[in-house]
Amino acid sequence: MSELLIDQRNLAFELYEVLDAEALTQRPRFADHNRETFDAAIGTARTIAEKLFAPHNRKNDENEPKYVNGAAELIPEVKPAVDAFLEAGFLNATRSFEQGGMQMPNLLSQACFAHFQSANAGTSSYAMLTMGAANLIESFGTEEQKERYLQPMIDGRFFGTMALTEPHAGSSLSDIRTKAEPAGDGTYRLKGNKIFISAGDHPLSENIVHMVLAKLPDAPPGVKGISLFIVPKFLVNDDGSLGERNDVTLAGLFHKMGWRGTTSTALNFGDKDNCVGYLVGKPHHGLSYMFQMMNEARIGVGMGAVMLGYAGYLYSLNYARERPQGRLPDGKNPSAPQVSIIEHADVKRMLLAQKAYVEGAFDLGLYASRLFDDTETLDTEEERKSALQLLDLLTPIVKAWPSDYCLKANELAIQILGGHGYTREYPVEQFYRDNRLNPIHEGTNGIQSLDLLARKVTMNGGAALKQLSGIIQSCCKRAADYSELNELREPLEKLHAHIGSVTMALLGDMGQGRVNEALANSALYLKAFGHMVIGWRWLEQAIKAQQGLAAGNQADTAFYQGKLQAARYFLRWEVPSCHHDLNVLENRDLTCFDMQDSWF
Amino acid sequence: MSELLIDQRNLAFELYEVLDAEALTQRPRFADHNRETFDAAIGTARTIAEKLFAPHNRKNDENEPKYVNGAAELIPEVKPAVDAFLEAGFLNATRSFEQGGMQMPNLLSQACFAHFQSANAGTSSYAMLTMGAANLIESFGTEEQKERYLQPMIDGRFFGTMALTEPHAGSSLSDIRTKAEPAGDGTYRLKGNKIFISAGDHPLSENIVHMVLAKLPDAPPGVKGISLFIVPKFLVNDDGSLGERNDVTLAGLFHKMGWRGTTSTALNFGDKDNCVGYLVGKPHHGLSYMFQMMNEARIGVGMGAVMLGYAGYLYSLNYARERPQGRLPDGKNPSAPQVSIIEHADVKRMLLAQKAYVEGAFDLGLYASRLFDDTETLDTEEERKSALQLLDLLTPIVKAWPSDYCLKANELAIQILGGHGYTREYPVEQFYRDNRLNPIHEGTNGIQSLDLLARKVTMNGGAALKQLSGIIQSCCKRAADYSELNELREPLEKLHAHIGSVTMALLGDMGQGRVNEALANSALYLKAFGHMVIGWRWLEQAIKAQQGLAAGNQADTAFYQGKLQAARYFLRWEVPSCHHDLNVLENRDLTCFDMQDSWF
Repeated sequence: MSELLIDQRNLAFELYEVLDAEALTQRPRFADHNRETFDAAIGTARTIAEKLFAPHNRKNDENEPKYVNGAAELIPEVKPAVDAFLEAGFLNATRSFEQGGMQMPNLLSQACFAHFQSANAGTSSYAMLTMGAANLIESFGTEEQKERYLQPMIDGRFFGTMALTEPHAGSSLSDIRTKAEPAGDGTYRLKGNKIFISAGDHPLSENIVHMVLAKLPDAPPGVKGISLFIVPKFLVNDDGSLGERNDVTLAGLFHKMGWRGTTSTALNFGDKDNCVGYLVGKPHHGLSYMFQMMNEARIGVGMGAVMLGYAGYLYSLNYARERPQGRLPDGKNPSAPQVSIIEHADVKRMLLAQKAYVEGAFDLGLYASRLFDDTETLDTEEERKSALQLLDLLTPIVKAWPSDYCLKANELAIQILGGHGYTREYPVEQFYRDNRLNPIHEGTNGIQSLDLLARKVTMNGGAALKQLSGIIQSCCKRAADYSELNELREPLEKLHAHIGSVTMALLGDMGQGRVNEALANSALYLKAFGHMVIGWRWLEQAIKAQQGLAAGNQADTAFYQGKLQAARYFLRWEVPSCHHDLNVLENRDLTCFDMQDSWF
Repeated sequence: MSELLIDQRNLAFELYEVLDAEALTQRPRFADHNRETFDAAIGTARTIAEKLFAPHNRKNDENEPKYVNGAAELIPEVKPAVDAFLEAGFLNATRSFEQGGMQMPNLLSQACFAHFQSANAGTSSYAMLTMGAANLIESFGTEEQKERYLQPMIDGRFFGTMALTEPHAGSSLSDIRTKAEPAGDGTYRLKGNKIFISAGDHPLSENIVHMVLAKLPDAPPGVKGISLFIVPKFLVNDDGSLGERNDVTLAGLFHKMGWRGTTSTALNFGDKDNCVGYLVGKPHHGLSYMFQMMNEARIGVGMGAVMLGYAGYLYSLNYARERPQGRLPDGKNPSAPQVSIIEHADVKRMLLAQKAYVEGAFDLGLYASRLFDDTETLDTEEERKSALQLLDLLTPIVKAWPSDYCLKANELAIQILGGHGYTREYPVEQFYRDNRLNPIHEGTNGIQSLDLLARKVTMNGGAALKQLSGIIQSCCKRAADYSELNELREPLEKLHAHIGSVTMALLGDMGQGRVNEALANSALYLKAFGHMVIGWRWLEQAIKAQQGLAAGNQADTAFYQGKLQAARYFLRWEVPSCHHDLNVLENRDLTCFDMQDSWF
């Protein structure tokens, strides 16, 4: 069986044909890099993912973490895998050489990390959460906090978490109740309960640094009264050695549908009134700090969804090639040998849909990662701001679209394997179960739809949307050079125009105070907007495929034909379906909004 | 928490307002029944389902059957539940009084059984499979076979299975390899391996009667060479007592994504060359016998999918009413109390979609069951044939549509519960996992789409489709009496017309020999056709709701408003989405069909 993590030809296409990763090496920060260093890193990631992550993916699922004497126990395969990941430098791939990093573009770091996400969602999460926590301290912590907590995280000795959710405050962070009282010595004492804290306990590191949202006594109500604290599992002495155990306890583990390799914990802070925390940044600014890390976290979640979809697609593709079953509808001779199921039109449909979803979303995730590089390394502040504006707009799509459609891809992979796909002897059902988390966490997709329509589309007077429109139009203009692409370009242009008019109408409603009504059908808007974005990314891929075909390398012909066919599928089969959703929005159809509790 | 299995007001609406179950009591076979006997049976089903089936649904999932010394072990709660089901007479509800049955309409039997399917998919399957096996013997067995095997099944002493699938022949039954050699004494010796045999072993009954497809030595190749055999686990002596163990062995159990309460077995027939089987009916007619039981089995699968969807809908509805979280978009005061999530527009959407899917599919499943009664109890043969023709046409929809859309309902239920829905502490994730089997077994939905377009739509020169068209048109005509329903009727009329023209076009292609191409996009046809059927059933419900509102019973007003709103959702939000699918069919878009293996 050939590649099961990522199609390497497709990865090279993305990096070097579509996203021009080599151009990044012109920037001072990445000047020591070149295609060889990129490929070497990818090769290392691939090897570790194949050898140390993939083999225990099912075992993670079958042996979920256990709560033993107040601590979480994992299967023994997790630590060597994570250690190899750290050893190879992937935790700090984007950090500067001075910090001990590889000073790699985010684009490449993401491309490397994607291998681990594809191989083992559960085990790879420990690293991802640590990166998120470390970045928070790096951006907003004091020098002392960086020395005491960030450096050991960079060194791989401490791991991290993000502790936001509480039992009565899942999506509504403004309602958290965890309290932080000043202790008089500059530290704080926290008291409260958090749930669904991923990687909240495990034996993989010497210490765990919880980044905790809590409220100070003088906090104003709502989101403007939330502060951010460092709460280490073990206190850290001035010399960096570990001190006593802090008063944060593992209350229990959640037993999940999937993604079982990562502990999901309930944590109690301050059961003995002695939970020491350290304020990060300014009081009451905690949520805004979290939000500044949101783009990164949501790209990570989106890419996680993509990679589970990708793993399922590749597995079901191999299966469809190898499994003989039945004959074509016009094959009347029952003595003829059975055909491989990839020959059946409906199986081709299910494979092509998966390809369109996962390769479209993979491209978007990498595009967003490159945009993230732009926000940090473009020459002028104006350029960097412009990149950030676009990234802000795209982020809800980067998170939500793959978690909806690559989940759908996983469902199709199960269907292709049929009865076998429904058994735990094959991996595809686990991919589905693992992926089912992604539409929920890091802001549900319902919340993403509100973020898109109520915040991102309206910000700066719609500047980001104008920017994206310009980019899509320029893509269409370049596509117009290829008459073969007319049938792909036109559906995108039509959807783009329709979204423009619907957006104007909805913004008009909001401007007139009909906020609840204008946002009521935001889920439909998210779907249509997401399809426009993915449609645009497929048109970009199609242009590159045309150029590749024109280059005339015979070995690549089939690859480019596949790209064009997947683009054709997405732009002709999927994109036009959104006009109906937009019609519902345009008609201000309030069927759902008007539904009453008592009518159910 | 209120009702969790079936909304009883809705069940009464279906039986007595939409489907006029009382009219059935005018037929001689059901003359001893009346609304009171119907309601008493439903009450008993509900009580047993709530008290004995629902409580161990999660335990079934967490403690899947174990393979111990060549046999399957179940948790102890299954047998008392199944015994109570048998004791109450539900296994034989539709059988005649002479046979010891209740002589109930299929409609009512299905309505009763739905409670068990909602409460516990795993445990209820043992009964369902036994019914299927018993019906096969009843229809095609000899008198002696009926006495020896059917009567003990009716008595609840023997259970049954359907043993079709083989490792290399899942969907392609013409390729089965299990052999049956005449032993010279009128019996046969079987040899072969079957997989995915549900309820293939368990300790719930004295004996298990396997209905096995196998090939005789002189069998012609293909589907016309398949014969049907009775293969009992224990041989049965002439006096009805159990003889020696037959040579059919449990090779192992499959470990499934869900539906874990039902054993899924690998069975070996004739490992010791001594597996005794008894031919049912004529040689080589086995598959046609199976096909004659298909409508029943597929209604059962469809209703199973509906009921898992229904259980998830009711659970998430209760949760949404009780879970406070966040505030409405225009609610700027963070000190105001949180609202129940049922107040959020997107949660309403997810609830209303679930209601539309499950109550629409529930109605169709019951409609099909009533049609099944018509095939057996209408006055004239012509009427009975006409009912059967319609049922044949609808069967692929009855099986496939709920298994696609009530599965989608389960996905929405998880989303409403958010992080909690993703944990195994709540039941909704299990409903999804259980339901994921339904698009696969009893003919994959891809196969249903081919059955619909290649067989059912074309049979008798399209007579069934004409019949259904007439019924839909008559429904629209009655709806036209209510101007309030115009906005619901028009989308159905439009879809109906579009399906008509697309069907003609595709049949034309088939007539010209382009069979593979005409059937290539059958999945889209199935979706659109299914939406037309469910849309029609919702318009029927809407008419009854209008009539109910006009009757002016205040206590029912909210119920009927809910019906109208769900109908509005389905006919305005869902039905029009199918025109795009039909456009793809109409344009003969062969994007998927043309995709090549090497391009993936």
